[in-house]
Amino acid sequence: MSYGLLKGKKGIIFGALDSNSIAWKVAERAYEEGAEFVLTNAPVALRMGELNALAEKTGSDVIPADATSMEDLGKLFDHALAKFGKLDFILHSIGMSVNVRKGKVYTDLNYDWLTKGWDISAVSFHKVMKTAWDKDAMKEWGSILALTYIAAQRIFPGYNDMADNKAYLESIARSFGYEWGLRNKVRVNTISQSPTPTTAGQGVKGFGGFIEFAEDVAPLGNATADDCAGYCITLFSDLTKKVTLQNLYHDGGFSNVGVSDKVMKRYEK
Amino acid sequence: MSYGLLKGKKGIIFGALDSNSIAWKVAERAYEEGAEFVLTNAPVALRMGELNALAEKTGSDVIPADATSMEDLGKLFDHALAKFGKLDFILHSIGMSVNVRKGKVYTDLNYDWLTKGWDISAVSFHKVMKTAWDKDAMKEWGSILALTYIAAQRIFPGYNDMADNKAYLESIARSFGYEWGLRNKVRVNTISQSPTPTTAGQGVKGFGGFIEFAEDVAPLGNATADDCAGYCITLFSDLTKKVTLQNLYHDGGFSNVGVSDKVMKRYEK
Amino acid sequence: MSYGLLKGKKGIIFGALDSNSIAWKVAERAYEEGAEFVLTNAPVALRMGELNALAEKTGSDVIPADATSMEDLGKLFDHALAKFGKLDFILHSIGMSVNVRKGKVYTDLNYDWLTKGWDISAVSFHKVMKTAWDKDAMKEWGSILALTYIAAQRIFPGYNDMADNKAYLESIARSFGYEWGLRNKVRVNTISQSPTPTTAGQGVKGFGGFIEFAEDVAPLGNATADDCAGYCITLFSDLTKKVTLQNLYHDGGFSNVGVSDKVMKRYEK
Amino acid sequence: MSYGLLKGKKGIIFGALDSNSIAWKVAERAYEEGAEFVLTNAPVALRMGELNALAEKTGSDVIPADATSMEDLGKLFDHALAKFGKLDFILHSIGMSVNVRKGKVYTDLNYDWLTKGWDISAVSFHKVMKTAWDKDAMKEWGSILALTYIAAQRIFPGYNDMADNKAYLESIARSFGYEWGLRNKVRVNTISQSPTPTTAGQGVKGFGGFIEFAEDVAPLGNATADDCAGYCITLFSDLTKKVTLQNLYHDGGFSNVGVSDKVMKRYEK
Repeated sequence: MSYGLLKGKKGIIFGALDSNSIAWKVAERAYEEGAEFVLTNAPVALRMGELNALAEKTGSDVIPADATSMEDLGKLFDHALAKFGKLDFILHSIGMSVNVRKGKVYTDLNYDWLTKGWDISAVSFHKVMKTAWDKDAMKEWGSILALTYIAAQRIFPGYNDMADNKAYLESIARSFGYEWGLRNKVRVNTISQSPTPTTAGQGVKGFGGFIEFAEDVAPLGNATADDCAGYCITLFSDLTKKVTLQNLYHDGGFSNVGVSDKVMKRYEK
Repeated sequence: MSYGLLKGKKGIIFGALDSNSIAWKVAERAYEEGAEFVLTNAPVALRMGELNALAEKTGSDVIPADATSMEDLGKLFDHALAKFGKLDFILHSIGMSVNVRKGKVYTDLNYDWLTKGWDISAVSFHKVMKTAWDKDAMKEWGSILALTYIAAQRIFPGYNDMADNKAYLESIARSFGYEWGLRNKVRVNTISQSPTPTTAGQGVKGFGGFIEFAEDVAPLGNATADDCAGYCITLFSDLTKKVTLQNLYHDGGFSNVGVSDKVMKRYEK
Repeated sequence: MSYGLLKGKKGIIFGALDSNSIAWKVAERAYEEGAEFVLTNAPVALRMGELNALAEKTGSDVIPADATSMEDLGKLFDHALAKFGKLDFILHSIGMSVNVRKGKVYTDLNYDWLTKGWDISAVSFHKVMKTAWDKDAMKEWGSILALTYIAAQRIFPGYNDMADNKAYLESIARSFGYEWGLRNKVRVNTISQSPTPTTAGQGVKGFGGFIEFAEDVAPLGNATADDCAGYCITLFSDLTKKVTLQNLYHDGGFSNVGVSDKVMKRYEK
Repeated sequence: MSYGLLKGKKGIIFGALDSNSIAWKVAERAYEEGAEFVLTNAPVALRMGELNALAEKTGSDVIPADATSMEDLGKLFDHALAKFGKLDFILHSIGMSVNVRKGKVYTDLNYDWLTKGWDISAVSFHKVMKTAWDKDAMKEWGSILALTYIAAQRIFPGYNDMADNKAYLESIARSFGYEWGLRNKVRVNTISQSPTPTTAGQGVKGFGGFIEFAEDVAPLGNATADDCAGYCITLFSDLTKKVTLQNLYHDGGFSNVGVSDKVMKRYEK
């Protein structure tokens, strides 16, 4: 069902890779709700070519950009501004740990890889906002969102240095969000999403068992990528203008359950 | 603007007193978005008679109910269930401290008044949900909301025993929300709203200065009752189905600002 | 080992029942560290008579007091003040839910029992502090502590209305702690302790399985009553004078672990 | 007064610069309590030469080490291990933002400086622990502490990218602390200290006004460096063995005060 919640709104969506991506679902849903946007991802990700299908479906341009490159980001925003004028929303759905990919455990991190993962997963959010800031790219009462995970607050073994990256990302949301609020009435929030079987998420070690555990803890079950898309729409809409600097758990209740009856059953035999 | 976000949805709204009330604004907005609902408040509050105007405007019945009385709540839910069938949403916007009204400071509380205020402000939320629970009154994926204040987490002098009541209320939301989730996929959340110049809010000592302070802290300024109504709509809608057990700050960013530039100006002379 | 950390300090310890009690261990440890104190518990609890052994061992008086009775509390503090002069510390280790005892689940609470449990478990802390406040009973830089549990923040099925009571208790600590700080430089904190196999704790349904789960989550394992006694000593000592209004997790790390390797093993077969 | 709380304990203390440093005070206090330790700081910081006075007073060696250099850290730990055998405690009190020093505001950060400040202020904590981990340098039930600031949770304008660094630092404490707990029963915590007029702290813009504001908010006033030293001693002692993965506010109550009467006076004219 469509409500026209984003009618006339313009934005940029970072991080759609394939139809498992949360950003992909957000794009589809934003389109249904009346938004127009530019899609972007790293050139290497775009080489796989799936994003064009989404672009076609939603009438969007695809602009490749390495989100750690101020030059690439500058071109991306120039394109979007030329096409749309000022923007209403930005979605940042980017994360990658080289250490995770290469199988380095947390007590044995490679620091070059650590720096690269931090730059991609966290600093990129600052770079995106700095680019938008310098170009005065956001409309008043616009909305900027990034996706994060509760590993920023609590231990989830295997999540590794991504936990620290997400903590940094959430801090950027607050730090920059304060400035955006004062200058442009723009809000900045993070959504702390259930573990989601995206192509990226599935790369984390032990993901299958973990997603089952999370499902057992959350009284409403895990939030899916589709669910997340709906929630993002509300946060881009005009109905949430005064929500800012928040980290919003979208997880079926997982975050506030210490233990569930279902988990306890595995302990009561 | 209306989106039809609550088209076909049925509910009960507690706590509308006059046009300054948050619950009043929620009712207006829910009506615009297509919802039908029963309005209720304590018999003593209804005597003032303003609620009828809202009922007329929104095509609602007004059913008096003391939210601390299981008997009254039973009748209220029976009426709503007879009229609508199962419900999609409930708003709990109820709070009153006798100690605050009578000018008793926190170190000199009257314990009978404490108990009464706790029953009205906090336990009533349990009673409302227990009544709905026993009558199996909620549709799957329904949404139950209560309004709260950040004094549940931090000191705001003058807020007095209402701070403790709100902490208890928020705990009820989690405790009962877990059960609702498991049985009916119903979500339960609280909105921690900016200080709002409702008729009740204005009764708190030093409210005027405080609202100015909050305005100076929040980068987007205080959220108004109208803003809150919009936010409630998103939380009653189908777009937030997996948000539960959360305390959601709706405060222009106040909660995550330690100090603002505006406040600091009063310290830099 | 003894350090003399509490040499010359005087206090009141609420809630020692038998040698499984945390308060019992705190009393033993405080005595070793040089403190003198009055022991108190409800008359009904004292009838079992074990407390006399502790009193003898630590050279303490036992003064029966129902912690919900301002009259009893008045007499207790009069006794302590007459014996010691002003006090350095108070420990509140009191909690009881009639609903839990009677097997009422959270969705079917008896409200009279709810009120009674709230009065005993939470309001008693206000009453203790109000009595001390009115009698100006605390020395500057004194320390007041109450024991709590993480169910105040997250769901632990079976903890029932005690979760809400603990949330209220923690709020009292903040609300009253602010006043104590301003007037007397007294600090007020709560310790959120691991599940502990006290006589009371063992009454909670499914406690055995739960304590095993908690042990599997906490990287250092559950904190014992003995561990807790040591921690309380630091918080009564002069080394923690500027810690106030805090809820301090003493739980082997449980509170900040989302899932542990040990728990995941039950999901990876 | 000395209690012998750290009798026989060995450690490494990072970050003492001059007698205003928190690490300096911790060293003095740890010495009084019976500890032996190695003092270390960056070679450039040591050039100022003041640290020798502390070394003499406490009978310590000074080993220069750039805390971002695995080679320097390796030598430092080799020295400490050769001298003491395994260690009981480590204090990390290191932080520096090039952007703050150079006057770059948060919306105009230099990313090379950002990376450098992150490496020094946050990653260094991982490097210290990885060095200790690889050398199996910690005794069972040892304690590792880092100093942080509440800007990791809330906005304090002028704190700039140090806010994000502290969020990352606190996340490292949790992530690595989990591993330490499992392998060696070692605990890892951060202390979130009041603004402290150290030589470094005073470099932050508007620090004077801010410290006055913080003093007005905290019911016990700001915690001093001396106070912090006392608190660190408790966390290195055997009395806090089960406290881990925590961020502990040591701030006179600041963190849980939304607004104080003193601040409100500036708003009530």
